[in-house]
Amino acid sequence: MTESIGVGIIGTGIMGASHAMAFLSAPTIFEMPLGARLEVIGDVNLAAAQKAQARFGFKRAVGSWQEVIADPAVDLVSITTPNALHRDIALAALEAGKHVYCEKPLAADLQGALEMADAAKSAKGRTLVGYNYLRSPAVEFARRLVQEGAIGKVSYFRGVYDEDYMADEMTPYSWRCRQDMAGLGALGDLCSHLVSVAHAIMGPITRVVADTRTIIKQRPVPAAGDGTERRDVAVALSGEFRAVENEDTAQALVQFADGNMGSLVTSRAHWGRKSHLAFEIFGSQGSILFDHERMNELQVYTKGAVDAPTNGHRLIPMGPEHPYYGRFTPAKGHGIGFNDLKIIEVAHLLNGIAGKEALYPTIEDALATEKVLHAIVDSTQRQSWVELS
Amino acid sequence: MTESIGVGIIGTGIMGASHAMAFLSAPTIFEMPLGARLEVIGDVNLAAAQKAQARFGFKRAVGSWQEVIADPAVDLVSITTPNALHRDIALAALEAGKHVYCEKPLAADLQGALEMADAAKSAKGRTLVGYNYLRSPAVEFARRLVQEGAIGKVSYFRGVYDEDYMADEMTPYSWRCRQDMAGLGALGDLCSHLVSVAHAIMGPITRVVADTRTIIKQRPVPAAGDGTERRDVAVALSGEFRAVENEDTAQALVQFADGNMGSLVTSRAHWGRKSHLAFEIFGSQGSILFDHERMNELQVYTKGAVDAPTNGHRLIPMGPEHPYYGRFTPAKGHGIGFNDLKIIEVAHLLNGIAGKEALYPTIEDALATEKVLHAIVDSTQRQSWVELS
Amino acid sequence: MTESIGVGIIGTGIMGASHAMAFLSAPTIFEMPLGARLEVIGDVNLAAAQKAQARFGFKRAVGSWQEVIADPAVDLVSITTPNALHRDIALAALEAGKHVYCEKPLAADLQGALEMADAAKSAKGRTLVGYNYLRSPAVEFARRLVQEGAIGKVSYFRGVYDEDYMADEMTPYSWRCRQDMAGLGALGDLCSHLVSVAHAIMGPITRVVADTRTIIKQRPVPAAGDGTERRDVAVALSGEFRAVENEDTAQALVQFADGNMGSLVTSRAHWGRKSHLAFEIFGSQGSILFDHERMNELQVYTKGAVDAPTNGHRLIPMGPEHPYYGRFTPAKGHGIGFNDLKIIEVAHLLNGIAGKEALYPTIEDALATEKVLHAIVDSTQRQSWVELS
Amino acid sequence: MTESIGVGIIGTGIMGASHAMAFLSAPTIFEMPLGARLEVIGDVNLAAAQKAQARFGFKRAVGSWQEVIADPAVDLVSITTPNALHRDIALAALEAGKHVYCEKPLAADLQGALEMADAAKSAKGRTLVGYNYLRSPAVEFARRLVQEGAIGKVSYFRGVYDEDYMADEMTPYSWRCRQDMAGLGALGDLCSHLVSVAHAIMGPITRVVADTRTIIKQRPVPAAGDGTERRDVAVALSGEFRAVENEDTAQALVQFADGNMGSLVTSRAHWGRKSHLAFEIFGSQGSILFDHERMNELQVYTKGAVDAPTNGHRLIPMGPEHPYYGRFTPAKGHGIGFNDLKIIEVAHLLNGIAGKEALYPTIEDALATEKVLHAIVDSTQRQSWVELS
Repeated sequence: MTESIGVGIIGTGIMGASHAMAFLSAPTIFEMPLGARLEVIGDVNLAAAQKAQARFGFKRAVGSWQEVIADPAVDLVSITTPNALHRDIALAALEAGKHVYCEKPLAADLQGALEMADAAKSAKGRTLVGYNYLRSPAVEFARRLVQEGAIGKVSYFRGVYDEDYMADEMTPYSWRCRQDMAGLGALGDLCSHLVSVAHAIMGPITRVVADTRTIIKQRPVPAAGDGTERRDVAVALSGEFRAVENEDTAQALVQFADGNMGSLVTSRAHWGRKSHLAFEIFGSQGSILFDHERMNELQVYTKGAVDAPTNGHRLIPMGPEHPYYGRFTPAKGHGIGFNDLKIIEVAHLLNGIAGKEALYPTIEDALATEKVLHAIVDSTQRQSWVELS
Repeated sequence: MTESIGVGIIGTGIMGASHAMAFLSAPTIFEMPLGARLEVIGDVNLAAAQKAQARFGFKRAVGSWQEVIADPAVDLVSITTPNALHRDIALAALEAGKHVYCEKPLAADLQGALEMADAAKSAKGRTLVGYNYLRSPAVEFARRLVQEGAIGKVSYFRGVYDEDYMADEMTPYSWRCRQDMAGLGALGDLCSHLVSVAHAIMGPITRVVADTRTIIKQRPVPAAGDGTERRDVAVALSGEFRAVENEDTAQALVQFADGNMGSLVTSRAHWGRKSHLAFEIFGSQGSILFDHERMNELQVYTKGAVDAPTNGHRLIPMGPEHPYYGRFTPAKGHGIGFNDLKIIEVAHLLNGIAGKEALYPTIEDALATEKVLHAIVDSTQRQSWVELS
Repeated sequence: MTESIGVGIIGTGIMGASHAMAFLSAPTIFEMPLGARLEVIGDVNLAAAQKAQARFGFKRAVGSWQEVIADPAVDLVSITTPNALHRDIALAALEAGKHVYCEKPLAADLQGALEMADAAKSAKGRTLVGYNYLRSPAVEFARRLVQEGAIGKVSYFRGVYDEDYMADEMTPYSWRCRQDMAGLGALGDLCSHLVSVAHAIMGPITRVVADTRTIIKQRPVPAAGDGTERRDVAVALSGEFRAVENEDTAQALVQFADGNMGSLVTSRAHWGRKSHLAFEIFGSQGSILFDHERMNELQVYTKGAVDAPTNGHRLIPMGPEHPYYGRFTPAKGHGIGFNDLKIIEVAHLLNGIAGKEALYPTIEDALATEKVLHAIVDSTQRQSWVELS
Repeated sequence: MTESIGVGIIGTGIMGASHAMAFLSAPTIFEMPLGARLEVIGDVNLAAAQKAQARFGFKRAVGSWQEVIADPAVDLVSITTPNALHRDIALAALEAGKHVYCEKPLAADLQGALEMADAAKSAKGRTLVGYNYLRSPAVEFARRLVQEGAIGKVSYFRGVYDEDYMADEMTPYSWRCRQDMAGLGALGDLCSHLVSVAHAIMGPITRVVADTRTIIKQRPVPAAGDGTERRDVAVALSGEFRAVENEDTAQALVQFADGNMGSLVTSRAHWGRKSHLAFEIFGSQGSILFDHERMNELQVYTKGAVDAPTNGHRLIPMGPEHPYYGRFTPAKGHGIGFNDLKIIEVAHLLNGIAGKEALYPTIEDALATEKVLHAIVDSTQRQSWVELS
């Protein structure tokens, strides 16, 4: 019989639910060397934890993250709280010898991220950070194509991650607008994913020059004034406005360790974009185009693939011949979805803990990604190129 | 505590796994009024059943469909076997007072479908047929737009469902090529879905004129010669060829009960199409375009939506403001996948059994859909318009 | 020095201007074996003819088509009047020994078209009919690909030509709505082009079964009441409505001489479509997709073009490696436009008259195309398949 | 009768032919207040000039640019030679009191461009520089939308101009690779157009930080070794390689005078891109997307254009309701082409000379555009932000 580990999830928001679903579904999709038992769900709002317990079948619900870590049946701690809490929870969990599965970004500031990486280095538990777009069949396939030289020697990476969830100037002030709670703005929410993809495909970024803007300088404060956010309901406003403390939009030129160039653009205020994580990669023999809004297709051009008059970018619908996809359905072009990415991530996590796969990105890998984001802020303040140590 | 019903699934192929996953996931995505216990999995290949038992957590595995139906803990029977067995299993399950969740098409011939509908009419159990594309957010949203008059009085429906899984003339002969095992070819596999969508949006089809072709007249027989099919592995061939008994491609003009026109085209041999279930609907005020290969978007045009110079088809990425989507993620444009459609279908099934929703399509509803397919064959043979009774 | 012929154009509307521009531009784009002198422009509205004379540099302007034909300096007569006049003018011009360049469709009724074809058969002058989409680089390239077997043995053609110029129920009644002046509706305006393309690529259509609808049964009559149409200005209405005499929408299943199947759909009332002349062709080795709204690209899929995981439809931007394009610009992807198609057509015409190319489609070739349109009407009335003689 | 000016064109390459065609066609498309007579065509290759004379109907052909300028019948000089000659010819023509219509970029170096602008400032003749993409209906429509506030207060411009005409490492060395003859590489050929569009829509760029790369460091020298280039024929190679002196790829972050941010990326070595001049503009109320490879469409999103569930980017096919388009055809969606842009440009030129329109961009306007390109080179060398004076 398959061995299993006990899972404790902290946080009952979107990502908490996503983790729970993924732990439940992974063994029905993949053949897992290691099972996962949903032991305990924790949330400062105990009622929310209890509701999640019923929904997902956790054995226990608790009202603090400390109780989750203290639970002896818990081998792995999932951290899905607001960014500002990641550091404290991760340090405690690693200290307690647990495996840590942490949502991105690591922490609200670089200092916190550095401490987490330090702790992870010497910890007994293994770590994985939730850069879920790395699990997208088309993204992983693009990575493999580049590695195998399918487009020759690569020379350029153009990346964008635009959404419009804060494009409306009347979208209320929330924790996302605060330095102390969210840290970065679009850079943390969106560009972090973009850098994780760039790193995976192109190697480390070593220099950046950047510029950022807070387009909507102040936002209306909700009547409740609690700084939390609700995407799904209209919120009563207090009539007051508060200054936004982080960037809506950022752009950067980057240089990679091997000398290649690239650019990054991100915004949470670009109307009409819903999840436009897109990249273009150019090499000496071809190019690759991707846009997550059409996540089930990839475009590839290769010089001389066929005779010139019939050559062009190939619109490749994902199918079982591509990474992961065939575990979900053997039928081409039927499509997988966002939640499936999280299932793939959890399968990777369990395989990693079982020693079958090398986990990526660990907290230490994620630190490299997040250093780029902070270098972007730094470069903007200094209006100059910044070297990444 | 939530009441629950016992589920027995017959068949361990793609759709058997899909049903099992959906029963497990539905309560984590939707708030269900009724739980589902995976009681028993049955397959003539007992080893396959036992493997599925382990993977999905069924309580028992059995080697015949009869044992599934006879199991007193089973309240609902899922039928996911090859088409030719649907009729016998469904009749027995309904006779035994079970609810029936049957994959499409109903049966290998019209006679079988008629008997199933007759049995369903007087049965105690409720029924649902697996026309899963009806659960696609964009398809359901299109249906609602049409019903609410968003594009005015509708006048035309153009539907296509093309794939290329049998486009290669060296794709081996299998049960799909046989009248006795599969019944129809592309009409049963693909066009059945298209008609289910047309019926849901446009109302019943009452007349058809059609034409069909078996493009690849004979196919190589596998060495094993067992008539089963494997999509995922290369198959050794015997050197012999056998005549294909059903159509690769079909086309029809149709008339709907309200006098509107439409057309249907389907093929399993149209290279480059992977899951091209696409439709265009035109009305007096606008139009709607859909293609399942980009299942997370819908195009809508409405006359005068904005001033003429900036009017055009709106490319709408699915989001939580569309049907079902928000249960999977509150983030717009992130995408749901094929397996999620099955989760929505199972949630509907359980809601239906709990009396919260009117089940659609039941076996009787599905009969109307499948009568259209047989009328297409009939019209081709007679080379004339055929009225649907 | 290059020899030249004298051109007389009848009609000063859109197509009259288009012919004049094309005769002027052709020698600057192509190396012509034969020049063309703009001798005379004729219109019942003499002032319009005089205005066109000044604009394009004709030597003379006249107030009747008879004067154009009688002009001894005229070797070639361009017919760009409303459809109902084509027959009389063409017969007179052929009788007078002139070459005839006639806009499509041939005549308002089949009888007129038959008489034109009869006259053309024995005439001294050569003829060409203005099916300009045959000159589109992507369309001509698709034709060549099919002929060279690039997609193997072809089995299916799906054609559509939808526009929305009469989708608005308040678009006024005009000559286009009348049997005596326009003859057919969308079939004549749009589907004629589609059939010309189908014939060129797939060979002759020999059987059809069809259905048509007049979606907007009556239209408001303009105050002036003269039955002409103005697309560019708002028209004062009389308050009265008049019954539309021809179809807005038509659909047909067709069979080609070689046994292949196909379908045709056309409408002048499909909102959001501006010039959606689109086709899909499927063969044993691949497929080809085209849409005139993106006339500068063609999509081609070929089985095994590259390894399966990177195969897909190739989005081919037109360039100098494709037919005609390089005459306009050597730069790939820069695009040619609708007027350029007319220039290519006129170059073909002059080459044909000079004996360098075999003209296609002549009036006789066009008769075959238009017989299909009348068979569609006939099939609708009889609600049965119709054989083309 | 319309007054006219005498035109002398210098250069018989692609752009020379394009100018000639445009002068011939403009009066047939637009109602011109001023005619244009093709007086003389000049080329150092006299035979080429004579061939062009015959093709386009010039009155005379000459073997030097000096003779064109000296010709008393010439009122306007078109400069279409390689970049390195622009300066000398323009200075002489302006000195001689002629109007100057010059292809971009102004000169091979910034010094030349400055001298041209100085000369233009005090000259009697008017000037226009051939930034033809400004004439694209969709580009001009985008500019007007932005100016009218259709997408609110604009905050971001993302521009790209990628082609692949030098992506192949075996594409021979030519004048385009030389500092003395071409000056800049992709920046001059491509990015110059991009900046012209950015300036027209967003206002002047005032700061840049940039990076460039010569991807293919050396190229094979043709046997003939003459440094000219032939795109249309295979060239015999000498076996030697020569170092490329300018950039293949460049990227920049920019700041506009009003404080807005933007980015520019350009390459002549990005496989699969044929004429990918694309931009995205984001504002407080919406966004606009354009790609010249689909030059006949524009995408516009506006917040609240319709209810949220049916809102999305509108795919707008160009039609007569958009700038210029209706002069070519009154039919929507039929498409215009690259050569038509040049016709629009020439019509603007003649209107400008007649005093009916304010010419844009003059040589002085173009200087601002080209200063940005040189600042990009400067910033790369200094690896820092550069202010534009």
